[in-house]
Amino acid sequence: MPNNKIGGHYSQAYDEELQQAVERLMQMAQLAQQQLTDALTAFTSADVALAQQVKDFDRRVNNFEVDIDEHCLDILARRQPAASDLRLVLAVLKSINDVERIGDLAKRIAKALLKEEADSRPATSQLDALAEMGQKVLQMLQRALAAFEQIDAQAALAVLREDKAIDDDYARILQHSLSSMMDDAKQISVSMQISQVAKALERVGDHSRNICEHAIFLSLGRNVSHLSDEELQQVVDKKRR
Amino acid sequence: MPNNKIGGHYSQAYDEELQQAVERLMQMAQLAQQQLTDALTAFTSADVALAQQVKDFDRRVNNFEVDIDEHCLDILARRQPAASDLRLVLAVLKSINDVERIGDLAKRIAKALLKEEADSRPATSQLDALAEMGQKVLQMLQRALAAFEQIDAQAALAVLREDKAIDDDYARILQHSLSSMMDDAKQISVSMQISQVAKALERVGDHSRNICEHAIFLSLGRNVSHLSDEELQQVVDKKRR
Repeated sequence: MPNNKIGGHYSQAYDEELQQAVERLMQMAQLAQQQLTDALTAFTSADVALAQQVKDFDRRVNNFEVDIDEHCLDILARRQPAASDLRLVLAVLKSINDVERIGDLAKRIAKALLKEEADSRPATSQLDALAEMGQKVLQMLQRALAAFEQIDAQAALAVLREDKAIDDDYARILQHSLSSMMDDAKQISVSMQISQVAKALERVGDHSRNICEHAIFLSLGRNVSHLSDEELQQVVDKKRR
Repeated sequence: MPNNKIGGHYSQAYDEELQQAVERLMQMAQLAQQQLTDALTAFTSADVALAQQVKDFDRRVNNFEVDIDEHCLDILARRQPAASDLRLVLAVLKSINDVERIGDLAKRIAKALLKEEADSRPATSQLDALAEMGQKVLQMLQRALAAFEQIDAQAALAVLREDKAIDDDYARILQHSLSSMMDDAKQISVSMQISQVAKALERVGDHSRNICEHAIFLSLGRNVSHLSDEELQQVVDKKRR
């Protein structure tokens, strides 16, 4: 969906360049989301072929990053953007870094399956917990990208707060992995895998949170990293009045 | 040490602004290095007070990040830099992201000690392995920052290659942690801590590698993320001729 808030320059080519930066970011993000979805499916259903595919396709996400990075650099050099255009380019530059890391984390999840020893599989309850956490993370990422695309600080703030639930999921899965290791030494290797996959998902939550911060910066012109929840609320409220 | 390659504009104030961006990045990095050194000392010597200090000082690194980010944004908006000046500002913007994450990772190491149960300490051999890996990581970070400050692509490439040895250290410590868990269930909790600290150090290596990539970009104007070692060598060699 094209964003109506971008553009309005005398130069239509310039408008298109800015629009394209966001569109390519969204394409890149869609690919990273697909990678993450596939990695989770592969891990929870022990689909080795799919895991191999995720590993092989990582390069596509990386290529997007380099391509968009160069596109943004080109806009900065030739157009010398100011105000909201400059913020747009910088927010895209920062976001591709986060999306690239999400692609990396999907690859890490796929590799966790590929390294798994054939005779040991996690318990269904562990896989279910991971799958549920994964769904939450994917939804958060999806909403973070929508908030960015819509340049909606209010929505971005709401999504950013979802990260707490994901951190809690991680703590719970880690605790459960530790318990099952202690109960049964044969579970150690597989429980380490589970905790590593959960950690990767928790990191995707952090990167989604970063994307929300970039959306708030894009919308309000304020760098809001490291602000407390109350401070964030104040920044967003202040600009609404 | 001031870098002689920055500056030469009609406006002395502009030169100073660019110089200041790099100087502040280096100050921020020095603080993050100190945090990491202290976190490692705290973890390996069970110094809870020092760990608490690392945790409390994390905010200082974060404040630097916001401050430098705004400084760079201001240069982009007012000076509309081109060519090597633009690259300098972008390379600083990207690097503060990595340095901020290094500060986070130092905090994570400190927290690993604070969460540790009072009655269980890792074996001396495990702590020695971590300390040794930590020294390697700190040296790599130091050299990455020097390559950046000197805008030396050749040096940056050499440092970037050190990351392999750090990845190997991580794999070794992880394997050792797994073995000791399997040998003795009472070691599970403490071995998980060890592997988490080793993982944090491995991530610092990744961020140091990123800083080297930013230094190469700054020096040669090429985005070299995701290039193979041979491709990197070609890029650096080509520009030397």
